[in-house]
Amino acid sequence: MGAKIPILFVFIIMLFALSSAHPSKRKQYSPCKNLVLYFDDIIYNGDNAVNATSSIVAAPQGANLTKLATQFHFGNIAVFDDPITLDNNLHSKTIGRAQGFYIYDTKNTYTSWLGFTFVLNSTYHQGTITFAGADPIMQKSRDISVTGGTGDFFMHRGIATIMTDAFEGEVYFRLRVDIKFFECW
Amino acid sequence: MGAKIPILFVFIIMLFALSSAHPSKRKQYSPCKNLVLYFDDIIYNGDNAVNATSSIVAAPQGANLTKLATQFHFGNIAVFDDPITLDNNLHSKTIGRAQGFYIYDTKNTYTSWLGFTFVLNSTYHQGTITFAGADPIMQKSRDISVTGGTGDFFMHRGIATIMTDAFEGEVYFRLRVDIKFFECW
Amino acid sequence: MGAKIPILFVFIIMLFALSSAHPSKRKQYSPCKNLVLYFDDIIYNGDNAVNATSSIVAAPQGANLTKLATQFHFGNIAVFDDPITLDNNLHSKTIGRAQGFYIYDTKNTYTSWLGFTFVLNSTYHQGTITFAGADPIMQKSRDISVTGGTGDFFMHRGIATIMTDAFEGEVYFRLRVDIKFFECW
Repeated sequence: MGAKIPILFVFIIMLFALSSAHPSKRKQYSPCKNLVLYFDDIIYNGDNAVNATSSIVAAPQGANLTKLATQFHFGNIAVFDDPITLDNNLHSKTIGRAQGFYIYDTKNTYTSWLGFTFVLNSTYHQGTITFAGADPIMQKSRDISVTGGTGDFFMHRGIATIMTDAFEGEVYFRLRVDIKFFECW
Repeated sequence: MGAKIPILFVFIIMLFALSSAHPSKRKQYSPCKNLVLYFDDIIYNGDNAVNATSSIVAAPQGANLTKLATQFHFGNIAVFDDPITLDNNLHSKTIGRAQGFYIYDTKNTYTSWLGFTFVLNSTYHQGTITFAGADPIMQKSRDISVTGGTGDFFMHRGIATIMTDAFEGEVYFRLRVDIKFFECW
Repeated sequence: MGAKIPILFVFIIMLFALSSAHPSKRKQYSPCKNLVLYFDDIIYNGDNAVNATSSIVAAPQGANLTKLATQFHFGNIAVFDDPITLDNNLHSKTIGRAQGFYIYDTKNTYTSWLGFTFVLNSTYHQGTITFAGADPIMQKSRDISVTGGTGDFFMHRGIATIMTDAFEGEVYFRLRVDIKFFECW
């Protein structure tokens, strides 16, 4: 009789051990950390040197560096150092800088490829988050990869969902970046 | 006597718990997912605007943007939007686009550095796979890193083995990309 | 009476199972592998073709490709193939090449963004390590992400702490790279 209760426990533990064999990150698809941030990009067009936060630095044959190339900007590379804010207001307090580059890489629609890092330095967050991936700009919402982090985001990985929150012609855009970490350490 | 069977169970579970402490990804070096895909790159040379899928957008001092630079193309950056196919035929059905850039980065042999994403959009696969790494072109087979994924490839990581499947002078090449995911979620 | 010992065991195992639910990599923040390497970069300035290991290949409007741009080099992209050494001596035996690019991406201080790979090929190490991230150059020590590896560094991830070990004006620098892997496979 004395053995019956332990055997029951044993099965409960066995089930528990089974579930523990797969680390939580593989089963649990809700983020272990979540951040929504915005950044604003003003591209240099020859007249806005004071306000511009990005510059065209490469262009295809026949194009110049103060106007995005004609064929859906195909072949342009822009380097940027953009202010990051907690809300969708360019004039809000800056909590860090988005630094890196984007490439326009399609001839028949607007798509870009992004390689950049959020350098966060505020009372909220200290550390970096690095992103890479294709950005099919014309889609309302698109996912890129979060490939690494440092500081508060030590070894983190995840997905960032990007939305264009505002834009003005070819000179200005603001992106909303919903960062979902699924590997947090 | 009643306690003996539970103790036996307990040891079995202990062994089981020990093995579960190390997630399978660390022990199992066969891929959890495997894809072999091809992509074709036709670089713009001044005459092939209709067919070209990539453009030289940066070059070292003295070089131009319609011909790869003389010293093993050192210093060229090309931006591309290349069709992806399931077999080694440029005219097969396209299942997505390879988008990003490559750099030629050695002065005394052909090597490149790749940063790009497979944007897959077909009945087979929906999602993106992002790659980064050095590509020593003259080696028959070379490995780069798969640093992230979205959609069907949510949070995946792995290794891609690249082989040059075909090329024609400086204007065209086709790469075979054997993607081995070792972290699948 | 016979049930008492098993219940004690059961609790021990339960504690053990609980700890095993979180893979060791999440708890252990000391590196599973550590490498300190150096690489030297000599940028092409129009006169040093023989020794130069990197070239400016993109620049903002008004700048050229043999001199870094005036506004904290903002907008320059350099491509490099730099020798890697085990100590801080440019003339030590080379154990591999650091290949990729850096971008200067701020207008009011020196910062860069790095995308590159260590291609190691020696009796010590065989394989590649790929890095990405923001490099706030003026800080004594700064962290970037190790986003992937191949060969001896198969599927590795980690953090690299970079320090400027030496520099001469705008033409030369040596970086000390302390690579700490926290995911080793």
